[in-house]
Amino acid sequence: MSERVWTAALVVIGDEVLSGRTQDKNVAQVASWLQVQGIRLMEVRVVPDVEKRIAEAVNALRTTHDYLFTTGGIGSTHDDITVDSVARALGVPVVVHPEARRILEDYYATRGGLTEARLRMARVPQGADLIPNRMSGAPGIKIGNVHLMAGVPHICAQMLDALTGTLEGGAPLVSETTGCWVAESEVADLLREVEAAHPLCQIGSYPFFREGKVGANFVIRSTDAAELKSCADTLCEALGDAGHDFTPGGI
Amino acid sequence: MSERVWTAALVVIGDEVLSGRTQDKNVAQVASWLQVQGIRLMEVRVVPDVEKRIAEAVNALRTTHDYLFTTGGIGSTHDDITVDSVARALGVPVVVHPEARRILEDYYATRGGLTEARLRMARVPQGADLIPNRMSGAPGIKIGNVHLMAGVPHICAQMLDALTGTLEGGAPLVSETTGCWVAESEVADLLREVEAAHPLCQIGSYPFFREGKVGANFVIRSTDAAELKSCADTLCEALGDAGHDFTPGGI
Repeated sequence: MSERVWTAALVVIGDEVLSGRTQDKNVAQVASWLQVQGIRLMEVRVVPDVEKRIAEAVNALRTTHDYLFTTGGIGSTHDDITVDSVARALGVPVVVHPEARRILEDYYATRGGLTEARLRMARVPQGADLIPNRMSGAPGIKIGNVHLMAGVPHICAQMLDALTGTLEGGAPLVSETTGCWVAESEVADLLREVEAAHPLCQIGSYPFFREGKVGANFVIRSTDAAELKSCADTLCEALGDAGHDFTPGGI
Repeated sequence: MSERVWTAALVVIGDEVLSGRTQDKNVAQVASWLQVQGIRLMEVRVVPDVEKRIAEAVNALRTTHDYLFTTGGIGSTHDDITVDSVARALGVPVVVHPEARRILEDYYATRGGLTEARLRMARVPQGADLIPNRMSGAPGIKIGNVHLMAGVPHICAQMLDALTGTLEGGAPLVSETTGCWVAESEVADLLREVEAAHPLCQIGSYPFFREGKVGANFVIRSTDAAELKSCADTLCEALGDAGHDFTPGGI
């Protein structure tokens, strides 16, 4: 019996990531959050701040996944074009959301007032709902299965908090990690055999060099907790029998 | 006169990034390296360790950009399927590269010998050349405009080093950054005007919250150094005239 798997994709809007200037932090935080909701992140695209390119990515991914997230480009400046791009993708006009306007009026009441530039942050694709943001007033935006989140990582985190428990998901993917000071090529056969014996589990092998030595972490993932434990036990036993010192929880 | 722009895309192969377990470091390092080669990174896709999905991303991006890079999945274990996926995308068989085999034989001569698992790292799509890797023996792979790089960041860095100066590019995109303790919404009009007056430059605005205060960095990018300087000077003057303390180089 195979369970319904819920999937998501993420579009990072992203000249600053594509230039190498900014190290993206949203992929990891959106991925970890989705994991807990029982939703699997299946693809990420980082696209430039170009309306047509954003719209293409949104349309390619919103139709092939249960949920789509975007990060970045929902601020008040000329380079914030996510709302226009998503509206274009969906074929709807951009309107000022009355509740967003009210939120911004309140927020800026003691901060110099709601200017025309700031009012840009109340613009949404027609038909959208808001995602609350306790941090800086300007809300995130939800339209259909598309969620527009802030690019600043801790504001994005606030918006994820506000969405927690509101999206339908499946059984969360759980994982166990074992680390070993070994070249992964030495245990490649062993890993393949243990994975083959546990069809409900995937084993990922992640080599590293540290303190002048080679090592690898082996991450086992499954939606079935009992199978996960059985697979982890079998792997540790096999590593031990092969004469390797392993470290549960990874190195 | 508009110059030829050279573009690249990157496919990150990527269950460990999509699960949120690993913070990717290769996007930033490949992006920065390409910048110096005069090549613009235009899109990144992070895809799961699934042959069909990797092949689709490779085919979508290798035909629309001058160069395609992949990171990850070229090691010795069962989950390393990048070579097979790229061969499938290109419609060529996988073969053992004699030079790669010789390199691995040498490397493992004092490290337990070349096992069948280790020999996996000599497999390439037919017709491929090797990208040297002084760090751990196993080479990267170059076939047509597709470059298969290691997922471990400092091995990827070694392979980028080996490619330095071998790819044709255009004028490097140069940038200047100015930081300001200001809400970006306060200077949105000013930014738009300065950008409009300098058609060869793009200005990106990257807000942040730090030490309990709002601020923003403004990054100006151009392939024309004189225009870049003129735009930066104009922006700093405009920020100063508007009564803001700015910090050249960013905050």
